[in-house]
Formats: sequence, structure tokens, C-alpha cells
Amino acid sequence: MFLRNCRTCLALPRFHNSLAVPLRKNYSTSGPIKDSPRKRRTIFSGIQPTGIPHLGNYLGALSNWVKLQDEGNPQDTFIFSIVGWHALTLPQNPKELAASRRDMLAVMLAIGLDPKRSIIFHQDSNAMHTELAWILSCITPTGKLRRMTSWKTRLAQSRNANDESEVDESLLNAGLLTYPVLQAADILLYRATEVPVGEDQKQHLELSRDIADTFNHTFKGPSPIFPSPAALITPTKRILSLKDPTSKMSKSTPDPTSRILLTDSASQIAAKVRGAVTDSISSGVTYDTVARPGTSNLLSILAACSDEDVQVVAERCEGMSHSALKGQVADAVEALIARPRAEFTRIRADEGYLEQVARDGAAAARDLSARTMEKVRERIGLN
Amino acid sequence: MFLRNCRTCLALPRFHNSLAVPLRKNYSTSGPIKDSPRKRRTIFSGIQPTGIPHLGNYLGALSNWVKLQDEGNPQDTFIFSIVGWHALTLPQNPKELAASRRDMLAVMLAIGLDPKRSIIFHQDSNAMHTELAWILSCITPTGKLRRMTSWKTRLAQSRNANDESEVDESLLNAGLLTYPVLQAADILLYRATEVPVGEDQKQHLELSRDIADTFNHTFKGPSPIFPSPAALITPTKRILSLKDPTSKMSKSTPDPTSRILLTDSASQIAAKVRGAVTDSISSGVTYDTVARPGTSNLLSILAACSDEDVQVVAERCEGMSHSALKGQVADAVEALIARPRAEFTRIRADEGYLEQVARDGAAAARDLSARTMEKVRERIGLN
Repeated sequence: MFLRNCRTCLALPRFHNSLAVPLRKNYSTSGPIKDSPRKRRTIFSGIQPTGIPHLGNYLGALSNWVKLQDEGNPQDTFIFSIVGWHALTLPQNPKELAASRRDMLAVMLAIGLDPKRSIIFHQDSNAMHTELAWILSCITPTGKLRRMTSWKTRLAQSRNANDESEVDESLLNAGLLTYPVLQAADILLYRATEVPVGEDQKQHLELSRDIADTFNHTFKGPSPIFPSPAALITPTKRILSLKDPTSKMSKSTPDPTSRILLTDSASQIAAKVRGAVTDSISSGVTYDTVARPGTSNLLSILAACSDEDVQVVAERCEGMSHSALKGQVADAVEALIARPRAEFTRIRADEGYLEQVARDGAAAARDLSARTMEKVRERIGLN
Repeated sequence: MFLRNCRTCLALPRFHNSLAVPLRKNYSTSGPIKDSPRKRRTIFSGIQPTGIPHLGNYLGALSNWVKLQDEGNPQDTFIFSIVGWHALTLPQNPKELAASRRDMLAVMLAIGLDPKRSIIFHQDSNAMHTELAWILSCITPTGKLRRMTSWKTRLAQSRNANDESEVDESLLNAGLLTYPVLQAADILLYRATEVPVGEDQKQHLELSRDIADTFNHTFKGPSPIFPSPAALITPTKRILSLKDPTSKMSKSTPDPTSRILLTDSASQIAAKVRGAVTDSISSGVTYDTVARPGTSNLLSILAACSDEDVQVVAERCEGMSHSALKGQVADAVEALIARPRAEFTRIRADEGYLEQVARDGAAAARDLSARTMEKVRERIGLN
């Protein structure tokens, strides 16, 4: 799944995916990587270092990573990356970015990603991502990149322009134009066989498949180097703003009470849920995303927290007042994040452990990608 | 100096430059890199792996490298790179590219570049070039890249189109658009203080200076990370085609007798010079590039071989027939390249030695660039 984080969702995918090779403590990478997606999957997913995720990020994407990891076959490889280089395509505060990198790593560990089972690493600790991106950029027409719905629209949005025509394309940085190539490199570097994508990121996965195909055809050999990464469908939970239930819960919205962060305390959660926009219908609770978006969003959150169908939850809450529903939602959210929150606090304070995880993850990522790059360099003649 | 090799001169600079830090056997890189170009110069120059250079490449650029190295101050650092990643922006035959990489390295050693004095390495063995290029691409507007006189014109030429309008810009690969950023990274990665440039590459050096400036202003710190690379003027010798003395000697011209390769034998040289186009003026020899381009080119070659002023040479040859002049030119060229040619044959056969030089050079280049990248990563918040 390609996730978006709200601050940068305007421009950047968070989640990619790739897959396979059984990984244990020392990330054995011996033996050939098989291309068949049925046999060994390699699942790669990336998230930008945007600090503490909110409930929407967690329920919409991060919790899926944990599920994928925990329910995967032993021969599957899971690679979860914090994609710092993508973050650079929009202006960043260096100090905040540095802190966000550590926050995100701590969050990933806190929610249950296991560095003994998955490769967890910072993209920017493996320069082979940029090496492959350069190579792939030499077989990717600029026209394809300029057709990505993303690039112009997104900057227009991030600059609060009303439409594309207000943004002078020539001012946009080259990274913003070429980041889909870096994204393709993220995926192909690990010879990912499946990539979980959301609707809005399908075009980027298509480009990655396209680039893989072009490479395989341009540089022929005994066998193609890159498998074509397939879309991996995971259930998406769309969590909306508590203050404006017509838009997604977002980190970039100025009002902090519109979102619940994974680090919010029980009382902060209760206060935010209590202040959530609902509607003026007082005769009980129904799930109706058009007529009652606020109420429906609360039901969605409740259902997501308990991993139930929202219709089942709606029936159970039928006779409740808004206030009673809010009480249940606050409790459910608290129950959901209490453990990750405590884990986050513990892990985030342990810089030594975080560094060790990052170092081990980077080494494992480099081991795996070095096998791809050795083939790539030989195939293109740079060896 | 930014050199062009004929095959790809349409699109790509060969020579960059940077500089400084005394280098001996083990490339000591301890102590701070000073930014003052007066004190410690770091001179970086790159050449594309295009196989055996011709006389134009040698006299126009490569011999200058040797001169720079041999006449440099002890505290100067010289870095000479074979820039394989730039070569990818135009289609390459992988087998030929792989051989050309080794050929070029052997040539560099054969002409007198000394791996104990200079860092000699393959760009593609140091992924920090692409890492820095990515980072710099995020602060470089696409408009600046599209204004480079290079990109569209050059591909138009390489595709034998008559003018820019015949080339669909959207088909051009992204690498061709962004390679000036990679070139800036090549230079800035070693915190080069001076860069030898030819006229046609001034725009690219300007871009590198511009990018250095933007980085220093965007990411402020106790001191700017990148010195502004200054142009280093070296005498350029313009050697023309033996068959068409209105254009430069070029590797891409179909007729192989239009150029003399560094590996040509004495008899090949003599035959090619004998077949050189001159003119129908039989009353002696004069230096007149407009009326007598062919004859003047032979005088230029003769002067370059003996490192004399062409006017002095012209006076000495005043009474000669074309045939006598050609005899002198052939002898002078043979005298010039006999040693490098023999050295090339010896070194090229010693794959083990070539690998060792490439490995040592890569390690030294990485050592030096790691110091820059540590600062860069910290400054931008990816640390």
C-alpha cells in the first residue's frame, strides 16, 4: 500500500511494497531470489519521516504492515523503509526532519514491527536507492513523469494556489519531477514482487512496472532482472478529520484537535473525541456517510479499533446518544493505542537501541540490494 | 577543464575539475578541507568511458591533466574520474561500455597520471555521487535545467534531426535533463575549488556554482559546506578532423582515417597523416585557419606535439611541401604517442593491476566524499 501522510500527501507516497526471502535474526540472503510471486514474496513499503502518525495513518496503513508481517508466510521478506529522500522534495526543517526520522522508527517498532522478522531501515542509509534511480532515470522519458497527475497539482496545493496555472512549472524542483523514478528504484532494488497500493498511487505503481519492463527489454540477459511488481490489495480504513468529516484526518490541518496522534494521552483523546463534529440529528446513531459524515466517521473509528464491520457496530450503537457514542469511541481508541503509546515512549528514549535497529536494518537492506545492483551493473556494462 | 569526447560530445561533458589536500600513497584525508582556493586546491576532472581517446582528446584535455598533476603544489588534491553514469544518458552497448571503462583507465595511467599522486577512479564506484545528485535535484528548479543549451539541441543532433523542433522533448530521458545536477554533485562532492572548463561547458559550471550557492543559503550552518568552484583556465588545443578540417577531430565521425587514436601504430599514423586533407596551394606552408584550414591543422598538431607556438612552427616550415610537412607531423605524432601507446598495451593487459588501481581510487574517493556527505546529511536533517 502506498500511504500518504497528510503534511506531504500533496506530493508524496508513503507506502510502497515489495517482497520475499525468509528472514530471521541475521537476515539470511543466501541463495537465489526467486521471481515467482507465488513462492517467495518480497513486500516493501515506505513511509515518510513525518513525525508522530495520527490515527488515520495508523488504522489506514501502519497497522496493515503489522498484519502483513504477522500473517506472512515464513518465506516472505518484509522490508519497511522510512523514505527520507522523498521528504526532501518539499521544504523541510532539518531539525524537525532529524527528529521525525527517529520518531517514525520508534513508532514502527512500538506498533509491533519486529526487526527480527522484517527489515526496518532508513532509505537514506542505502545509497543504492539513488544509484538505481539514476540508472532508471536514463531510460524514463520526461514526458511520462510530467504526465503523473501528481507533480504540478500537488505543488499547486502545497503552495495554496487555486489551480495548476498559478504555479510556474519551471520553479518546481527536479526532485519533484523525478521522485516517481526514485520510488520505482525503492521497489525494484529489492526485486519486490507485490506492492500494496491505494487508489491514488496506482499510477506510480504502473510507472514502476513500466520502468521494470523497459529495463528488462533494454538490457536483455539470460533472465530479466526485475519482476513486475504486482499490486497487493489490503483493506483500507479511511479515517476523517474530527472537525471536518468531509476530508481525511490530516497532519497538515492547522487545528490539532482535528486529529488524534498515537502519542495522545487518554484525556487528550477523550477531549478531542468529545469535540468531534457530529450532526443535529438526536434520534440515535446511524451509519450514513452522506447525511451524517461526522457520526459515521465516529462509527468507522469504533469499527476500526475493534476490527469489526462498521454496519455491525452501527447496529449495536443504534440507540445511543452522540455523547454515549463518543464515550465508546474514546475508550476504544485509548484501548487501541495505550500499548503502542507506552512502547513508543520507552523505545523513543532509548537512542542506542534505535541506532542499533537502524544500523542492522540498513546492513540487511544493503545486503539484499547489493545482489540486485551487482546484476544491474553487469547488465548495463558498468562493471 | 570540461572535455568532450566526440561520440557523446553532443550531450555530455567529460571533464570536470575540483581540487586539494596533499595526497600521497595512502591518500591522507585527515585534517580539515580548507575552502580557500589559494591554499589547497582540489581539482576534479571527469571523462566519459568512450574507449581509446584520439589525438584531439589527448592534446586538448588529457595531457593537461598530466601537466596539472605534475606541476601542482604538494598540497593540491587531484581527482580524475571516469564518469560512467553520465554515459548512460545516451544509449550504450553494455559490452562496449564495460571494455571502454577499462580502456579509459588504462589510457589515463599510460599517459602519466599517477595513482600515488592523484585519485583515479570510476564515478560509478562511489554511490555518493548519486546520493548528492538526488539531494541537489531537490533544490534545483526544472526551469534551470531546461534552459541548459544542451539538452534538446544535443539529442536532436545525436538523432540526426535537423533542429530542435524535430525532437519530441517528452521522449527524452530524465537523465538527459538532470545530468547537469549529477555533474554539480561530481564537483561539489569533493568540495572542488576550481574546475577547468572549456567555453562550451561554462554554463554547466555556472549551474554548479549556482547550486552550491543555493545549498549554502538553504541549509545554513556555522560555515557554508560548499566552496564555489572557480573556472580553471588551461590552454586548449583544438585539433581538427584530418578529413574535414572545419570540424573537430571526433570519435563519432564514420571515417576512421579522420582521427588518430592513441593506440595507432607508426604506420597507421603515417598513412592517416598522408591522407589528410590540405589545399591546392603549392607554394609552401602558411598558418591561415580560414583560407588553409587543413594545412593549419597540421601545423597545429605539429606545434602541439612539440609544445611550441604554432606561429614559430609555421615559420620554420615555411618552405616545405605539403608532403614534407606531413612527414614531420607523422614523426612528431609518433614521437608523442609511442610511449603512452606501449604503456597502454602493457597496462591494459594487466587486469589485476587495473582492478587494484580502480579499487584503491574508489576507496580514496569515498573517504574524501564521506567527509562531505556527513556534513551534508547533518545539515539537511537526514542523520
